[in-house]
Order: sequence, then structure tokens, then C-alpha cells
Amino acid sequence: MILETAELTIAPGQEGAFEAAVRQAVPLFLGSRGCKGVRLHRVVETPGLYRLLVDWDTLEDHTVHFRGSEAFAQWRALVSPHFAAAPAVTHSEEAMSA
Amino acid sequence: MILETAELTIAPGQEGAFEAAVRQAVPLFLGSRGCKGVRLHRVVETPGLYRLLVDWDTLEDHTVHFRGSEAFAQWRALVSPHFAAAPAVTHSEEAMSA
Repeated sequence: MILETAELTIAPGQEGAFEAAVRQAVPLFLGSRGCKGVRLHRVVETPGLYRLLVDWDTLEDHTVHFRGSEAFAQWRALVSPHFAAAPAVTHSEEAMSA
Repeated sequence: MILETAELTIAPGQEGAFEAAVRQAVPLFLGSRGCKGVRLHRVVETPGLYRLLVDWDTLEDHTVHFRGSEAFAQWRALVSPHFAAAPAVTHSEEAMSA
């Protein structure tokens, strides 16, 4: 299992529209190969900064299959009008859970 | 619910000892007020970079009660010898989950 962490900086005043766009985009993620769930978090310390957390079976489910899909183009069309900066995306794998 | 995200940069070659120290420290977290779980993730893109993800009932459960506790001092004594940089800690709250 791989956790994608996308840091998304949203233009001031567009937070509500951005959150609505993410809710609208949920089926694009859940319908994609290997996607196990998607969460949106607001970062407490930085207004306008969000973290999108997506669980994938494998790294390639995100980086190859999702990014190469029509669903990805639709996702970006929904949310990118609200971006104030380029997304910063990383991936991590679980070493321990308790 | 608040998610604490601590980015921890570990000195080269000390990853195994660090992971063992985190496993040893699990009861310090789980025994603290409002702590609902703790996970350790390795960041795929950056060798030596980890994310510690801790679920808390409230922000203050982490920033006031845990950080002011003897458990926090024990946690830091276990893991800080392996740090190659100061931890970078942020918090986030869930806006959406699917």
C-alpha cells in the first residue's frame, strides 16, 4: 500500500469551491485501478494549504495508470482553477502502524 | 480529529535503529490523552525521510498535553539520536473522506 500526499495551495477565498470540486471528483479516484480511498485535510498552520491523501495499492497505480487516464484530466480540470501554486506530490509506504 | 504529521530526517545508516526506536515508543503515544493511533511511513522519493502520522482527538492533546509530558521526553530521548535535522511538525483536520 502506498499513500500519496499532494500538498495543494488554494487561492484565498476559493476554499469552499475547491472543497466542493474535490467532493465532485471523488468517483474519479474511487473508480481508478488500485485506489483504496481518498481524504482531504486542511493544514491547521497554513490557511489555504490542503493535503489530499490517497491510498493506492501500488506506486504505479497512481503515477502511471491514474496520471495517464482521462479521470486524471477531469480531476485536474475540476480543481486546478483554484490552485495558487503547483501541487507538491510525494508518496510513502507504511513501516509501522499501531 | 487532528492528524499530526511529523517529517523526520534520519541519519544515513540509522534507519533500522530509528524504526526500532519508534516501535519501542508506541506505548508512549497510545497511553497519552486523546491519542487514537500512530503510523510510521517511509517517503519513497527521499531516502532517510520519514513521516510519523499520529491521530489525536484535539490539537491540544498533542501540543499541550503530550508535549508537556514525561512521555514526550522519553519519545525524544529514544528517537532524536537518529535525527539528521530538526523535525518539521504540522497538523491537519479532515475536510472530506471517501
